[in-house]
Amino acid sequence: MASPFDAETIAIGTELLIGGRSDSNSLFLADELGMLGIAVRFKSVVGDERQDIVTAIHTAVKRARVIVMTGGLGPTVDDCTREAVASATGRRLARRKEALEGLTARLAQWGRQPSKGQVRQALIPSGATVLKNPVGSAPGFFLTWKKALIISLPGVPREMEEMMRQEVLPLLRAACASSGRQPRTPIMRQVFHTFGLAEADVDAKLQGLISKRMPVDLGLLASPMGVLVSLTTKGIRTAKGKNHDLSEILATGVRSRLNDWLFAEGRDTMEEVVGRELTKRGLTLAVAESCTGGLIGHRLTQVAGSSAYVDRGAICYSNLAKTEMLGVPAGLITRHGAVSREVAAAMAYGIRERAHVSVGLSVTGIAGPGGGTETKPVGLVYIGLDDGTGRPITQEFRFHGDRNVIKQRSSQAALDLLRRWLLGKAPR
Amino acid sequence: MASPFDAETIAIGTELLIGGRSDSNSLFLADELGMLGIAVRFKSVVGDERQDIVTAIHTAVKRARVIVMTGGLGPTVDDCTREAVASATGRRLARRKEALEGLTARLAQWGRQPSKGQVRQALIPSGATVLKNPVGSAPGFFLTWKKALIISLPGVPREMEEMMRQEVLPLLRAACASSGRQPRTPIMRQVFHTFGLAEADVDAKLQGLISKRMPVDLGLLASPMGVLVSLTTKGIRTAKGKNHDLSEILATGVRSRLNDWLFAEGRDTMEEVVGRELTKRGLTLAVAESCTGGLIGHRLTQVAGSSAYVDRGAICYSNLAKTEMLGVPAGLITRHGAVSREVAAAMAYGIRERAHVSVGLSVTGIAGPGGGTETKPVGLVYIGLDDGTGRPITQEFRFHGDRNVIKQRSSQAALDLLRRWLLGKAPR
Repeated sequence: MASPFDAETIAIGTELLIGGRSDSNSLFLADELGMLGIAVRFKSVVGDERQDIVTAIHTAVKRARVIVMTGGLGPTVDDCTREAVASATGRRLARRKEALEGLTARLAQWGRQPSKGQVRQALIPSGATVLKNPVGSAPGFFLTWKKALIISLPGVPREMEEMMRQEVLPLLRAACASSGRQPRTPIMRQVFHTFGLAEADVDAKLQGLISKRMPVDLGLLASPMGVLVSLTTKGIRTAKGKNHDLSEILATGVRSRLNDWLFAEGRDTMEEVVGRELTKRGLTLAVAESCTGGLIGHRLTQVAGSSAYVDRGAICYSNLAKTEMLGVPAGLITRHGAVSREVAAAMAYGIRERAHVSVGLSVTGIAGPGGGTETKPVGLVYIGLDDGTGRPITQEFRFHGDRNVIKQRSSQAALDLLRRWLLGKAPR
Repeated sequence: MASPFDAETIAIGTELLIGGRSDSNSLFLADELGMLGIAVRFKSVVGDERQDIVTAIHTAVKRARVIVMTGGLGPTVDDCTREAVASATGRRLARRKEALEGLTARLAQWGRQPSKGQVRQALIPSGATVLKNPVGSAPGFFLTWKKALIISLPGVPREMEEMMRQEVLPLLRAACASSGRQPRTPIMRQVFHTFGLAEADVDAKLQGLISKRMPVDLGLLASPMGVLVSLTTKGIRTAKGKNHDLSEILATGVRSRLNDWLFAEGRDTMEEVVGRELTKRGLTLAVAESCTGGLIGHRLTQVAGSSAYVDRGAICYSNLAKTEMLGVPAGLITRHGAVSREVAAAMAYGIRERAHVSVGLSVTGIAGPGGGTETKPVGLVYIGLDDGTGRPITQEFRFHGDRNVIKQRSSQAALDLLRRWLLGKAPR
């Protein structure tokens, strides 16, 4: 039933089942396998129970040909993936010389000798091939059973990722090439990030772009940071370049339809985009934050090298702080309220002047749950931008959501206004 | 093979399989089912492919008696959980009156009428019982097949959670009670958050607390925010109160052994803890951040009502900002460097004085990847606290990790120093 291009991931660990941790490895695995045209059709998570792992393996071999297991290869008694694979496939565990040498060498680098538990890590099911771990001490392994390739890797993301890149992917590429089968096009996922449009509006803009017959899935995902659009090509046999440029043609279509609303692609973030644009133009920035409480500063300074363009920020939670730190006139606050277009403009002006920077960006709003009134409800937020031209830009938003969501949306709206200003497309 | 207390969750959705989204519903489900002594032993994730969902159901009924499916109940063609359950269990789909009425009433509240796709949401497998959705429009359902209870809920977390609480859990409780079986003790997970100790040190402190025979699992999980300790009781038949107080006895043991290093329990966070202590004492706070870039302010203001004690914050990324915003003498920066114990103390003093607050908290450090030198490497961070007594507290840290990790650890170290000061336990 399973095709050679069907995969399953099995994440092992009781903390993934009932703890506060969710499995992030499988998304990496789906991406990397997808590049080879191999589709992850099932993901399983199972605790550190040998019999349950055996059950998961027996289930997986019936519905997938490539099975990637992560976790359960550590030195403690809990770690029983080695035993489970041996038991599931009817093999014996034996200490393997190359596995022991690898982990001994790794530990020696750290000035340590293998403990009794660590020596257990060199136990490998008979007939399996040892996979070197270039980062940590736990070796992995793979074997073929009932037409399925079973690969066992550590659960630590950095170790798993390096072993996939250095050991497993070359192996799978070679296996695909030598099988004599027609290669598949990669299952590629292109991601586009928009801000400022509702999901339904994004949907409307993309209407008709993709016909039913195209081997491409269109996905929309709304979050406080905006609506994410994904194009995923299906793994199909290559029809001599027929679909070769389809992804690129569709991407061009998405870009032109989403236009200014599109702020980033792939793993790029809003803060990276504005950072690059500021750098390109040799501009400097300062922020004045009320309801976001430092979030905009935090996001901007997540980018390495941001000290070149971020000079400072003022988190002015109290009214007195707005007056003392930014020179917002107390009378202006009394007249219009701290959450107002006028105060947002004065904050942006104040921080730009005091920080001697090119552009000042400000946010004032009501994040809730308390503090709202009938005329100024929770979610009312004003953004301000002052570039020294004497014509400050302000925007009003009425966001929905809890305190965290309103803070996130406000920070994104402020950075998006900055982005549009940098590109000469800000509303005046 | 499966016991009546074995559960499996099946999350449905292609974006969970290959997209950027990971399944968070299953952690909630494991917690809630655990309270009834029902253990989630397997988690599955499957895409929006009818045949794959059928396969997942057939697999689950062999190894679990309670199966909770989430997702695939929406109005679009992609959503095929209804069809898959009907096909897997050999039932027909029919439009159910109570399901249609429920969703029509919900949509009417929003001033809308059901679309063609939404009418499809009232199709329910024959013999299943409809589960009302008190939040959204998609109804759920449950049915019994091959001794397993199959429950189908929407994937939207808020809808799924309310339906579990209002509909499913009372049903499971009643089923457990009427089965005549001995009830099980809840599978309870107690969580303790520590900061400042390495994982091995936490382990050493807890050595010998839990004997092998106790029906309790001890888990340790290290992150930039500290080491998390979890105690998970196993679902066992109640032996007349014998294990009744075990959890509480062990929790007391954990608390006394971890002592001051324990900063919070359960879902409580560091910022909530310091917020409560500041409120209790009627104290006010201001922060001066360099390398954390606003993260401490952001975290403090995640807490509702924090405007009562957070007055302001200065994000002083440049040296000039430290001098202008906080009055740090330029000569002090020249003499000791911006990343120094002396500047941390001057920043804490400066922000406290200027903000007229009870306590000033500061951070200065090198988050990397650039900016490090041989004597002042990436990860070198100084924390300062000034309470107006003329005796500022400063601490030096040498953190490892990437830029984000160093920012996270620095913010946690600063808040932990504040916590210890509030409790009268700060190092002098």
